[in-house]
Amino acid sequence: MTPAFEALQKELKRLPGVGFRSAERMAIYLLLEKPEAAERLSEAILRARECVRSCSVCGNVCEDELCSICADSRREESGSLCVVEHVSDLMAIEKSGAYRGRYHVLHGKLSPINGVGPENLNLDGLAKRIEEEGVGELILALPNDVEGEATCHYLTELVESDKVEVSRIGFGLPSGASVLYADSGTLKSALDARKRY
Amino acid sequence: MTPAFEALQKELKRLPGVGFRSAERMAIYLLLEKPEAAERLSEAILRARECVRSCSVCGNVCEDELCSICADSRREESGSLCVVEHVSDLMAIEKSGAYRGRYHVLHGKLSPINGVGPENLNLDGLAKRIEEEGVGELILALPNDVEGEATCHYLTELVESDKVEVSRIGFGLPSGASVLYADSGTLKSALDARKRY
Repeated sequence: MTPAFEALQKELKRLPGVGFRSAERMAIYLLLEKPEAAERLSEAILRARECVRSCSVCGNVCEDELCSICADSRREESGSLCVVEHVSDLMAIEKSGAYRGRYHVLHGKLSPINGVGPENLNLDGLAKRIEEEGVGELILALPNDVEGEATCHYLTELVESDKVEVSRIGFGLPSGASVLYADSGTLKSALDARKRY
Repeated sequence: MTPAFEALQKELKRLPGVGFRSAERMAIYLLLEKPEAAERLSEAILRARECVRSCSVCGNVCEDELCSICADSRREESGSLCVVEHVSDLMAIEKSGAYRGRYHVLHGKLSPINGVGPENLNLDGLAKRIEEEGVGELILALPNDVEGEATCHYLTELVESDKVEVSRIGFGLPSGASVLYADSGTLKSALDARKRY
C-alpha cells in the first residue's frame, strides 16, 4: 500500500512458510497493532545476529566457540554421533529426549538436481570427528526421501572403517497413526521395514 | 538453544499465525541460512515504523497525512463508504476490484466479552465523515459472526439519518463452493440470505 509497507511485507515473505497474505497480516500487526513488538523484533534480530553463530564442531547454533552439546563431555560417553539435515531436526530430537549423544548438522542434503553437492554440506570436520571422538555408531537421522537416501549412501562410503557402525533411523507408521490414513510412501516404508514379531 | 536465539524465537512467535515451531524455523533461517535476510528484515521494520502511519481520515496505512485512497478525489464520487474491521480487509477488497469508493477501518469489532467497546474502535471521525463527504451509502463489510452483527447494529444506530442508506455485505456460499462441503453456519447464512430467482 505504501513503499515502506511493501518493502517490509516483501522481507517478511522471505521467511520460511510465510506467504503473501501472512506477510501482509504480520506487517499490519507490526506497524499498526503492536508497534512495540516491531522494535523488539528488530532488536532481537540484530542482537541474535551479533551473538549467535554456528558451532565450529557440529554446526548447531551457539554463542561461544562450542555449542552446549559439544561442550558437554557426558555427551561423548555414548560414543554415538547423530547426523541431521538441519539444526531444527537436532532440536526436535533433543526435545524428544530419545537420544543423548552428539550431533553433526549437514545444513542440507545431497541434491544434484538443485546443485547441492558434498562441497555444499558441512562435511569437512566429520571424518576427523569420527576418528578423534571415538565414535562407535554413526546414526543417520536424514529424511525418508531420495535426497536423504543419496546422502546416507555418500556418508556410508565416506566412513569406510570397520570400527564404526553406520545406522539409519527407522521408517514406517508415525506414533499413534493407523494404516488407514497413511499415504502409499509411508506404507511402502513400513512394509520394507517390517521386523519379525 | 542460546539466550539470543530464544529471545529472537520468542519475538517471532508473537507475529500473527506463527507458532513455536515456525518461529524456530524462521530464527534458524535468519541466523544460519540467510544472514543477509536478517539485516534486511530488521532494517525494513525500522524504516516502515518510521514512515508508515495510520491515515488520519480512514485508518488505512499511509506515509503522508492521507492514504492514497482518501487522497484520490475520484473515490469520493461513488458516494459510498465501506466500513471494515482491519486494514487487511480493505486490502482484500481493493485486490478484488469490486469496489471503488472510500473506506473506514475500525481496527476491531465490538466484543464486550473481550472488553472491546465503542471507545476502543476508530469511530471518532465516522459520523463527521458521513456528513461532510456526502456519503449516500454506508456499506458494512464486517465479519459474519456475533461480534460483526453487534458492530453493525451499533453503527446503524449511530447513523440515524434518512439521507444515508446502510447496507451489509451478503453472506452465503463462497464463490466456486458447493453445498456439500459448506459448514452449517454457512448454509444457515446462505438460506437466510436466499433471493427470489
